[in-house]
Amino acid sequence: MNQEWILQTTQAQGQERREKIMEYLKALRTRICGAFESLEPEHRFERKSWSYQKGSGGGEMSILRGSVFEKAAVNFSGVQGDRFPGQDAEGSFFATGVSLITHMMNPWMPTVHFNIRYIEAGSRQWLGGGYDLTPMGFENSEDTQHFHSVAKHALDQVDPKLYPVMKEAAREYFTIPHYNRERGVGGIFFDHYNTGHFDRDLKMWTQVGETFLEAVMPIYKKKKNLPWTQEEKNKQIRSRAHYVEFNLLYDRGTRFGFQSGGNPEAILCSMPPMAAW
Amino acid sequence: MNQEWILQTTQAQGQERREKIMEYLKALRTRICGAFESLEPEHRFERKSWSYQKGSGGGEMSILRGSVFEKAAVNFSGVQGDRFPGQDAEGSFFATGVSLITHMMNPWMPTVHFNIRYIEAGSRQWLGGGYDLTPMGFENSEDTQHFHSVAKHALDQVDPKLYPVMKEAAREYFTIPHYNRERGVGGIFFDHYNTGHFDRDLKMWTQVGETFLEAVMPIYKKKKNLPWTQEEKNKQIRSRAHYVEFNLLYDRGTRFGFQSGGNPEAILCSMPPMAAW
Repeated sequence: MNQEWILQTTQAQGQERREKIMEYLKALRTRICGAFESLEPEHRFERKSWSYQKGSGGGEMSILRGSVFEKAAVNFSGVQGDRFPGQDAEGSFFATGVSLITHMMNPWMPTVHFNIRYIEAGSRQWLGGGYDLTPMGFENSEDTQHFHSVAKHALDQVDPKLYPVMKEAAREYFTIPHYNRERGVGGIFFDHYNTGHFDRDLKMWTQVGETFLEAVMPIYKKKKNLPWTQEEKNKQIRSRAHYVEFNLLYDRGTRFGFQSGGNPEAILCSMPPMAAW
Repeated sequence: MNQEWILQTTQAQGQERREKIMEYLKALRTRICGAFESLEPEHRFERKSWSYQKGSGGGEMSILRGSVFEKAAVNFSGVQGDRFPGQDAEGSFFATGVSLITHMMNPWMPTVHFNIRYIEAGSRQWLGGGYDLTPMGFENSEDTQHFHSVAKHALDQVDPKLYPVMKEAAREYFTIPHYNRERGVGGIFFDHYNTGHFDRDLKMWTQVGETFLEAVMPIYKKKKNLPWTQEEKNKQIRSRAHYVEFNLLYDRGTRFGFQSGGNPEAILCSMPPMAAW
């Protein structure tokens, strides 16, 4: 990543910082969509804009329904409003982020989730994000190891203390209380991240953004041509039920989205193309 | 229904009342399962018991996966615990009820939901329940009219003021906030029902229980042999997504279930066999 960009951002205040961060997020979104499309023989992402009704700003959802990605949703949003939704903070707020989820046609390919976000609320500001992997019925320990080793390496560049903490945070966050079980094989997660050194915090945050594709693409490339049966597909579709339950019952992003009066189509575009109970 | 039974129940106190009510609920459950099975050429309900881990009591789920009922779940539960879950009341509680949802193979057949419940919390007690109809992509105004007219007639027997109020309560309760749209074509709904006359309240409540089959069975009998296409099936499966969203994001029964540490399998057995986003 561009060091100069970080310095500029940390020196800039208010609107300029917001704009730089949104610019970075949109560019990252475009890169990720491009990488996913490179695996897809024919289908492409379709982009749709929306406006934030309860304040200003809005977002862009990019949805791919293809032959490799049964459904991939990559969302950018940047909204501001008078009253922060939820209990984390008070006052006016600004929130921007990229959030994505994949649901793969091939049941051997795991679902992946990625998000990075920047939030200002009242006089506070923080970063949040992470990535986590969810095999849908078929766990592969090599994949899990690869995914986690990319995350560890990414965070170790900033501070070797980060990975163990953020891995544990993912374990906690992605545990489905009613089953007392993780929704997948984990990854990294952080929220309300603000050490008082914005430049260093932003470096950690962009490390997460910059390494996401490295964490998931080798897994997808390796598996995309594996043959699968209808029975395996059914198992995948049943596994997705837990993902739906987690997203609607517990996920903070979903709750924040609805509480803030966000666009329901954008909030729910992460839902699987098909799930069974 | 048996008038004597009501009198006994109103005169009885505490444990005896609870047991009479649970007896009624179990018998109603068995009658409803029998009626549904009469439409099903081959498949039968399977019953599974569970124990309430955070207190005493438990429940019985009855699940039918057949050729007419793609999935029907009819649950009886009767649980007690030290601390009422939720904000409605405080203190120890007792809760019993029957709850059911159908998901039909034939997309022309609507989903139906029925529940009646009796709750004691601290020194308070109340009744709740209702039934509502959800066409999955294919509304039929004759069905809607029949369903509502049975509900109206049932409640008019007790008090002509009830139906308009309970119809409006269903309209409010089953509105999906993020779409600002009802999940189906309504029905009747009541909660925290206690007029101070337990015998009359219970009569209203059993009227709801006793008339449910009359509200739905003629619709199912009329439609079960209608031909349908895969395209119509896909539309039904997509319509079920809203049902999932409502149940997990807003439904009080689901929330009460998870808050009280209920059995997740029993709480979630109402989920559709297949849904698409």
